[in-house]
Amino acid sequence: MNADSTPESRERGADGGLSYAGAGVSIAEGDRFVDMIQPLMRRTFGPRVIENPGGFAGMFRLDYNERLFKRNYRDPVLVACADGVGTKVKIATALRKFDTIGIDLVAMNVNDLIVQGAEPLFFLDYIAVNALEPEVQAELVKGVVEGCRQAEAALLGGETAEMPDVYPEGEFDLAGFSVGVVELTRATDPERIEPGDVILGLASSGVHSNGFSLVRQVVEHAALDLNRSYEELECDQTLGEVLLEPTRIYARPIVKVQRGYRVKKVITGMAHITGGGLAGNLQRALHSQVDAVISESNWSAPPIFRFLEKRGGIAPAEMRRVFNMGVGYCLVVRPSFAASIQDKLRRLGEEVFVLGEIVAGSGSVRKIGDSD
Amino acid sequence: MNADSTPESRERGADGGLSYAGAGVSIAEGDRFVDMIQPLMRRTFGPRVIENPGGFAGMFRLDYNERLFKRNYRDPVLVACADGVGTKVKIATALRKFDTIGIDLVAMNVNDLIVQGAEPLFFLDYIAVNALEPEVQAELVKGVVEGCRQAEAALLGGETAEMPDVYPEGEFDLAGFSVGVVELTRATDPERIEPGDVILGLASSGVHSNGFSLVRQVVEHAALDLNRSYEELECDQTLGEVLLEPTRIYARPIVKVQRGYRVKKVITGMAHITGGGLAGNLQRALHSQVDAVISESNWSAPPIFRFLEKRGGIAPAEMRRVFNMGVGYCLVVRPSFAASIQDKLRRLGEEVFVLGEIVAGSGSVRKIGDSD
Repeated sequence: MNADSTPESRERGADGGLSYAGAGVSIAEGDRFVDMIQPLMRRTFGPRVIENPGGFAGMFRLDYNERLFKRNYRDPVLVACADGVGTKVKIATALRKFDTIGIDLVAMNVNDLIVQGAEPLFFLDYIAVNALEPEVQAELVKGVVEGCRQAEAALLGGETAEMPDVYPEGEFDLAGFSVGVVELTRATDPERIEPGDVILGLASSGVHSNGFSLVRQVVEHAALDLNRSYEELECDQTLGEVLLEPTRIYARPIVKVQRGYRVKKVITGMAHITGGGLAGNLQRALHSQVDAVISESNWSAPPIFRFLEKRGGIAPAEMRRVFNMGVGYCLVVRPSFAASIQDKLRRLGEEVFVLGEIVAGSGSVRKIGDSD
Repeated sequence: MNADSTPESRERGADGGLSYAGAGVSIAEGDRFVDMIQPLMRRTFGPRVIENPGGFAGMFRLDYNERLFKRNYRDPVLVACADGVGTKVKIATALRKFDTIGIDLVAMNVNDLIVQGAEPLFFLDYIAVNALEPEVQAELVKGVVEGCRQAEAALLGGETAEMPDVYPEGEFDLAGFSVGVVELTRATDPERIEPGDVILGLASSGVHSNGFSLVRQVVEHAALDLNRSYEELECDQTLGEVLLEPTRIYARPIVKVQRGYRVKKVITGMAHITGGGLAGNLQRALHSQVDAVISESNWSAPPIFRFLEKRGGIAPAEMRRVFNMGVGYCLVVRPSFAASIQDKLRRLGEEVFVLGEIVAGSGSVRKIGDSD
């Protein structure tokens, strides 16, 4: 399409369409970029994606009546969110490793979607760079594609913008948008949480995509080397590799567990643990007549958190406010189903902790031993 | 929510939820920002938005059975796209005028959606800045809200990220993401275009949001003053004001015209004229057995284009590839309905040109007089 056009951006869709940059970018480079990413994107398409060559937007069938893939919603609620990965992009740039940060981008979005009870449907990305380097941006898209495959979402489109006057040399930014769907009657309703409900935590894969401004301060002030491994990290990876570990995507296990209990609503609340930490985010799942009581002895923070705390001289309370401390996602479940849900989640590959329980209260998160 | 949390970004939703930045931003500033934008966002909510305080994502009912607002889809296709506004942000920064660029952002997205036959449902924005200045970012959101109201879309959420190490002082970027819906049987199908169909053009409001790298080159090389008015612009506005004029949003008239012909499919193709110009974008609406033949004498380019062409010494062909030259949106319609559709569009406030017609061909756009 428009191989002769001259805008500042390359639009990508389930459409094969594209447009080209005038400001010093060769059409050949743009062509090469699209050639690289189109087959990648297509790897995420399920039967519900409508390919529309030349189209201006991506198309996704919500209801789908074909025999093999029948899906219909009675009262569909679309769930949508936008998120970025913050300054984790700077670690990717420092390591010149660009093929996983897209997983983080998908994770930050779909882990929010599933909190509302939704199954992810599709994803779009926005990549803005100082200068197009097709190999680099294709690596970014590779990560997004991998994230979409993990989340079972279609990469329906995206935009790659080259803005040399906005982004300094070598810098880039990533934003993502995700849409899911949930039956109205199955959407997470915080009012259903009751005293006695059990709080489960799913292990994080590391720092995920929050707190990187603080992480980078620690790296700088303690003169740490991203390319070195440290004994305290208790692994062979370098510090940079540990920090860049992609955010875990919880979509598949959470959607599967929810599908397993079609009639009974056994999950009464959920939370994606991002900035604000466990307390800040779990609190959003509560209503004003219950508290969550957490027993911190039920799991231990992975080495990277103890390392950052020690090397940065960060106060423990600050650590808990900024980082996930090893728990990336929470479920609040009916006590009689807690064991079977744990069991299912473990069989789906998750490490599960029993974090605590719900008691009568006033909408806050407390640690065992805190005064109420 | 989480007034004690410490991430790098402020997530906004139909949820009132928010989270705070550690890197030198006061919680009070973040609070103030959210206080400013929440009532603005709410102005875009229709009855299909589900407000979910504390929620992690925005929620929007697709089917809606309430008596007054009944809407149901038999085979809904979701249509989605992502786009930014390119370096038009630099003009906003130069003029310190931030309350309209959000309209451009919405326009760039919803004008793409409606090409597929969709009605816009909701929008999400991503704003990334060097440093949060609540007054400035609230102006940005004000523009997004105005755009959403024009497009009759809900501003369902957004993300505001503060990344001092990625964006230089004073710089910011905007990305947007929009979702619409169309009945499968009503989706634009390029195969339906036939010889004899009439091509209508809707007037643009100016440069829209494409070609600003070239615009800014002209401003620089010709030593133009954004704060001055020029006789050739044939208006009282300064050059900066003319350039910053928000992109016209065609959603309301296009959706209305489509609703007016429920049974007959009288619109056979559409195109949003962005980078690539009229030919580059109209070509995307064609199939391989038809050509579009355009008569350039049927409209004249507004003064800003003649001004840029002359002051920048830009070749006419280059102008047509980069800019919309006065036509922001195209419709291809059945000839027997061309007059009534024009009439409807004019009553809805659009300036309409008859650009040309469809002939048998090979999928290209030609000017009258071009050899075929």
